Amino acid sequence: MMQRSGRKRNKRPQVASSAFQQLAWSQVRTPYQPIEILDEGQIDAICDTAYRILEEVGIDILHAEAKEIFHKAGAKTEVGSDRVFIDRDLIKEAMSHAPSDVILHARNPAHNLNLSPGHISFGSVASAPNVSDIERGRRPGNQEDYRNLLKLCQSLNIVHFVAGYPVEPVDILPRIRHLECIADMALLTDKVYHAYALGKERITDALEITRIAHGCKSWDDFKQKTRLFTIINTSSPLRLDGVMIDGAMEMARHNQLCVITPFTLSGAMAPITVAGALAQQHAEALAGMTLLQLVAPGCPVAYGGFTSNVDMKSGSPAFGTPENAQAAMIGGQLARRIGVPYRSSNANASNCVDAQATYESQMSIWSAIMGQANMLMHGAGWIEGGLCASFEKVIIDAEMLQMMTKFLQPPEITESSLGLDAVKDVGPGGHFFGTPHTLKRYETAFYSPILSDWNNFENWEENGSKTATERAHSIYKNIINDYQQPDLDISKKDEIADFVARRTAEGGVSGDF
Amino acid sequence: MMQRSGRKRNKRPQVASSAFQQLAWSQVRTPYQPIEILDEGQIDAICDTAYRILEEVGIDILHAEAKEIFHKAGAKTEVGSDRVFIDRDLIKEAMSHAPSDVILHARNPAHNLNLSPGHISFGSVASAPNVSDIERGRRPGNQEDYRNLLKLCQSLNIVHFVAGYPVEPVDILPRIRHLECIADMALLTDKVYHAYALGKERITDALEITRIAHGCKSWDDFKQKTRLFTIINTSSPLRLDGVMIDGAMEMARHNQLCVITPFTLSGAMAPITVAGALAQQHAEALAGMTLLQLVAPGCPVAYGGFTSNVDMKSGSPAFGTPENAQAAMIGGQLARRIGVPYRSSNANASNCVDAQATYESQMSIWSAIMGQANMLMHGAGWIEGGLCASFEKVIIDAEMLQMMTKFLQPPEITESSLGLDAVKDVGPGGHFFGTPHTLKRYETAFYSPILSDWNNFENWEENGSKTATERAHSIYKNIINDYQQPDLDISKKDEIADFVARRTAEGGVSGDF
Repeated sequence: MMQRSGRKRNKRPQVASSAFQQLAWSQVRTPYQPIEILDEGQIDAICDTAYRILEEVGIDILHAEAKEIFHKAGAKTEVGSDRVFIDRDLIKEAMSHAPSDVILHARNPAHNLNLSPGHISFGSVASAPNVSDIERGRRPGNQEDYRNLLKLCQSLNIVHFVAGYPVEPVDILPRIRHLECIADMALLTDKVYHAYALGKERITDALEITRIAHGCKSWDDFKQKTRLFTIINTSSPLRLDGVMIDGAMEMARHNQLCVITPFTLSGAMAPITVAGALAQQHAEALAGMTLLQLVAPGCPVAYGGFTSNVDMKSGSPAFGTPENAQAAMIGGQLARRIGVPYRSSNANASNCVDAQATYESQMSIWSAIMGQANMLMHGAGWIEGGLCASFEKVIIDAEMLQMMTKFLQPPEITESSLGLDAVKDVGPGGHFFGTPHTLKRYETAFYSPILSDWNNFENWEENGSKTATERAHSIYKNIINDYQQPDLDISKKDEIADFVARRTAEGGVSGDF
Repeated sequence: MMQRSGRKRNKRPQVASSAFQQLAWSQVRTPYQPIEILDEGQIDAICDTAYRILEEVGIDILHAEAKEIFHKAGAKTEVGSDRVFIDRDLIKEAMSHAPSDVILHARNPAHNLNLSPGHISFGSVASAPNVSDIERGRRPGNQEDYRNLLKLCQSLNIVHFVAGYPVEPVDILPRIRHLECIADMALLTDKVYHAYALGKERITDALEITRIAHGCKSWDDFKQKTRLFTIINTSSPLRLDGVMIDGAMEMARHNQLCVITPFTLSGAMAPITVAGALAQQHAEALAGMTLLQLVAPGCPVAYGGFTSNVDMKSGSPAFGTPENAQAAMIGGQLARRIGVPYRSSNANASNCVDAQATYESQMSIWSAIMGQANMLMHGAGWIEGGLCASFEKVIIDAEMLQMMTKFLQPPEITESSLGLDAVKDVGPGGHFFGTPHTLKRYETAFYSPILSDWNNFENWEENGSKTATERAHSIYKNIINDYQQPDLDISKKDEIADFVARRTAEGGVSGDF
């Protein structure tokens, strides 16, 4: 069925859904200077503390080979212990190989992502166990929801990459879930996507599917470009898990991007102060990135900032808080100090798609962009501290990200745009609706929203008094209905299907974790 | 009744409502550098265009005395026309007298507002004809709603000033409305408030009530400090109305603050380009401020930025748009060029308190703060492009403004806050809940919300699955219930009551406009 429908659509132009007006695909740039919350001396102090953590406290590396790699590079290790003490000189030398300019290649080259300084790409929600819409409520994710979210990601130009499984399809067996899911990503979207580094086997399968989708005849060919990425969360405080390391090393050896994102929730897994949590974040990120530079010098790595705080009353994680925003911006300063791409998030902790979800997300988006993140994870659809993917929130986030994109395009200052002639034309007391200056520009002068309703109250009431969330519901359904699968050679489709079938017949991966 | 209750409460401490946890009153500072969207040369180009507008197109001054003042200062005028052509040298000379440091004095000195560079104050919603809450819906404003909104303004520490009538109490006759309303502001709040410059009479009455409330025995005494402010909207394009000029000149002569805010909606009353609308905004603001400097050299004036765009489909004004955010930030650059305080707004065009109201407000708040506005008009409660004051939005905005306030306090970077000892104490794989470093700080480490709910989904569901807007409803009602009227000498109360009674008996102002 999938192949037939792919064929039928071959003659259609390669565009995202035309059923709604949206911004054209573009690589977003941030022309404004970043907000620097701390001065150079304060950044020095955080960096120095991070080094001292790795030198004096050490980090647990739960992976024998990785520990040995550190040992050989000169790090202090102890027999019978996972603890590794890493000197700052070792880190600096290793990190000097990390590239600052990283391009993530999509199977459709029009969707390549530049992660070098001053560029930003927005990703989908990822890894939510639940999914919700206002019609059916909150429920565990399944393959249908998973595919529908992928279709939204593909159709929305402002979603630049698939940041992980938008929702966990729990109806697929864990042993084969990655096969189904990565194949869906490669078939239903032509954008960059993420693979979970849950052991070497899953990553190897993801690499294989991606190699086929990209049409690489050999692994040497594949390795020429960075095409796949993975998020490596440390087990804060100060621990790198074995399965994650396994997958990350495999990625590094294939020249694919690993984003080291410490899970430093301040007050729980990290010190209760923003300064302390960031020092620990920095230490953990450096340890992870250093390991990968030792494994494959020059491999692409990125710095992930995820420091937020827990609510000290409930113990729940909070997002979009003032502390979270500060940490996100300072994270940018720390990443720029090292000279690698920076990843932040569009996060919130609301249990529904309401004003709280929105203002917490805005705090996250502004701090990420003004902190000059290069990748925004969970850009569209995240609610509930990541425990739920919301279809309506995808649309609300898309609107907010589009607005930021336009905001990041400074107005033109030319004689014509300054409009002295138009002012002369209209004069005091007139209006500009009919002047040539207006008529020439009115169709494209202003940002045109997906979701925002600027009708007056009476018209809005006549249209059913719908909230933004209710309008988002209709919009997401229409987009999914109008979804068009991106073209892919039938031979590649067959090859992916064959590979998935073979690996499924073999039972998938050997361990269910 | 009011006097008795004032007496009874004399012994209570002078604090805002203690029924809910909120940030203490504070003068907010912006320690981070502003975002400069344009470079110096581009700002020059806008300024030059503004000068050329005033020199070559001119501006209509619908006020004989003001026109004569411009004429005497050297501006070109024509007999039988309102048009005034103002040379840039005249403007520069006049504006050289405008102070950059302005303090707005409240009758309670603890609530004084510093409007000098790097400081920001948040005001209430103002001038909405309608009011709404989710229980009773949208309706025209009345005195009860007006007073309830004033009570919220007084109780919320983050609302630093009353930006105008939060809602128009249409049940009070227009001839005496200002007497009732200004008296209520002076009695129900002890914060800085606004008076409408709708002719000299209303301003004279407002000055008188304010003089009494501040306990000034003479007008000389009163004029020593700036205690009252007014917003002067130009009738864009390029017109200053007579009644507004009348009130503004009276304010200037009393050393009170006039904020000149051009009503430059791009595409309607101003050119369709951001550059052109800002050039016109700048011209109109300069004309108004120049007039007042000619009337009373050295009087406090501020630069108001309100440039947004209209929706070219419906003709409705749009707010919180990318263009609005850019204009707000560039407005800050233009105001800094002149060296006067800068006013921006927390605006949105949503018809209800939903995600749109929230993300448009966030765009407004971030651009105002990163543009380094000194006054944020409509900070709490504005929806529907200003046509409605929402009780729930007051609470949502208060939360957002509190979050910004905390965000503007950079984290401490000290040996203790960097927490190396805590990390040593906990070590890899532990947790920070019980460490001394945490225990010493957990009560004050993080921002504590008014409204945000960080419970997990199950607890949130058990509590009734309430959206932020629904929770805001209960919160605003509780705050009004717990409202405490601020102290004021009984003699002042009597004097204000007598004044209002006398002026009401006289019939109020002579014209109902």
